[in-house]
Amino acid sequence: MSLLIVGSIGTDDIETPFDSIKNALGGSTTYISLAASYFTAPISIVGVVGDDFDKAFIRTFEEHNIDLEGLQIVQGGKTFRYGCKYQYDLNVRDTLYTDLNVFENFDPVIPEKSKKSSFVVLGNIAPKLQMNVLKQLYNPKFVVCDTMNFWIERTKEELLEVLKLVNVLIINDSEARLLAHEPNLIKAARLIRELGPEYLIIKKGEHGAMLFADNTVFSAPAYPMENIFDPTGAGDAFAGGFTGYLHKTQTIDLDNIKRAVIYGSVMASFCVEKFSTKGLEDLSYLQIHDRFLEFRELTNF
Amino acid sequence: MSLLIVGSIGTDDIETPFDSIKNALGGSTTYISLAASYFTAPISIVGVVGDDFDKAFIRTFEEHNIDLEGLQIVQGGKTFRYGCKYQYDLNVRDTLYTDLNVFENFDPVIPEKSKKSSFVVLGNIAPKLQMNVLKQLYNPKFVVCDTMNFWIERTKEELLEVLKLVNVLIINDSEARLLAHEPNLIKAARLIRELGPEYLIIKKGEHGAMLFADNTVFSAPAYPMENIFDPTGAGDAFAGGFTGYLHKTQTIDLDNIKRAVIYGSVMASFCVEKFSTKGLEDLSYLQIHDRFLEFRELTNF
Repeated sequence: MSLLIVGSIGTDDIETPFDSIKNALGGSTTYISLAASYFTAPISIVGVVGDDFDKAFIRTFEEHNIDLEGLQIVQGGKTFRYGCKYQYDLNVRDTLYTDLNVFENFDPVIPEKSKKSSFVVLGNIAPKLQMNVLKQLYNPKFVVCDTMNFWIERTKEELLEVLKLVNVLIINDSEARLLAHEPNLIKAARLIRELGPEYLIIKKGEHGAMLFADNTVFSAPAYPMENIFDPTGAGDAFAGGFTGYLHKTQTIDLDNIKRAVIYGSVMASFCVEKFSTKGLEDLSYLQIHDRFLEFRELTNF
Repeated sequence: MSLLIVGSIGTDDIETPFDSIKNALGGSTTYISLAASYFTAPISIVGVVGDDFDKAFIRTFEEHNIDLEGLQIVQGGKTFRYGCKYQYDLNVRDTLYTDLNVFENFDPVIPEKSKKSSFVVLGNIAPKLQMNVLKQLYNPKFVVCDTMNFWIERTKEELLEVLKLVNVLIINDSEARLLAHEPNLIKAARLIRELGPEYLIIKKGEHGAMLFADNTVFSAPAYPMENIFDPTGAGDAFAGGFTGYLHKTQTIDLDNIKRAVIYGSVMASFCVEKFSTKGLEDLSYLQIHDRFLEFRELTNF
């Protein structure tokens, strides 16, 4: 059964202190699916673009064996467009514009064959759309969900309904503190898991990631990088590597989930080495495996 | 040969959101030596107090088999006094007052028998005093050094002279960025190691610690704690556990230094569980060893 990924697909304009790029392929679904494509197939994505969406981007998905049956192309519509600028230390991102365009009325329709998917990733979109996706599925056994401050602040009730149905929530540390109303991350994690998710992953950027499960905390290091070119999509690349590895191995136990967290960290590290999705476009399995072993070496004592 | 520790000894008034304590035992030498005392002996400390220094504090040192020959007690003098208040999230500390008192004219005099020490910890004091200590030693083979923003900003030239003679520098992430003038921590670490220290340890509070050596980065997790009662002295407890373990084992290779980083992290985690030095006063070796194993479990995959 395919790995189903639902979220945004768009065009990004990105500026960092080192360089800038315009009209780049972007969106949460894009990064998640490209990262996952190194681990597993088939992958089906559901999203919406306008008819201005670059044909080369379609080919990028196809080259990664990503099934586009669920991609709606709105004739005469304009694709979701996002512009941002990173400051000197790269931890601060200013959004320059968010033109929702066709994404504003996005109504995810799951193709019949994908309704049987048991593995699904709900990218960072409105909780009511995430719920809409879940309702169309026959038997979603393993649901991975992302969200952000915007939805926590504005649509908390809807988000809480989604969280009851989620197996893994992947958010960053500031989102975890906000969602739990608690500055201590360990306490926040306990409170969030009480909302539904059996597994909680808190991403901490340059400080790595933490996995919380019953009676377990697992701490994954960050990959030490002297040069981060573009942090865009790192969190989505993490979700893609994480879920792609689990979909490949079809084993949901704590040891395998820890390995999946490391594969997620590996894909996030490749993602930020190049602009936009470029860091996720031409990898080999050997490169990915070597970096996995480097992660092991990082914490081994 | 004894482990020699030089730094401040004083009386602290500490306020946290949970409780407050007045006239508590404090100072960098205090935390370093108490933490190290669980690993090794003899430990000799060099410092200065006034004759108002509580006799019970002297007994605390003695109970931990810490040699006080190098402790100067200034008749009629007042002991160094420090007051601070932690904010709600405990990452922000406001200094309420720093009364240097007898510490203002501190001139560290190393007792004859301690001049042969090959292991020395230079606590966070003025670089010119740190240099003064090194000059009195016959053969300092393994020098561990701490410093802070204050000295980096005001006495950088003197600090750079000390760093040339240091084997291990232990600082926190903001100090590392300041010292190297570089926001990327991995780059900053490379630049700082070029100043002298063969090993650099960067403490990151709730995000753990990183060890940098030739061609090696080692990432130590933080111990997951729901309740941190008092962060005071955590960095010094780290330095004490780190150096105490190395002094005990007398083995300076990368694998043993990684283990020492974990023992440092273990002692820092015990330190913050209680107010002032209380978390370092009544530990058993079994407790320390068990927590060491918990640290291994935290990153094992």
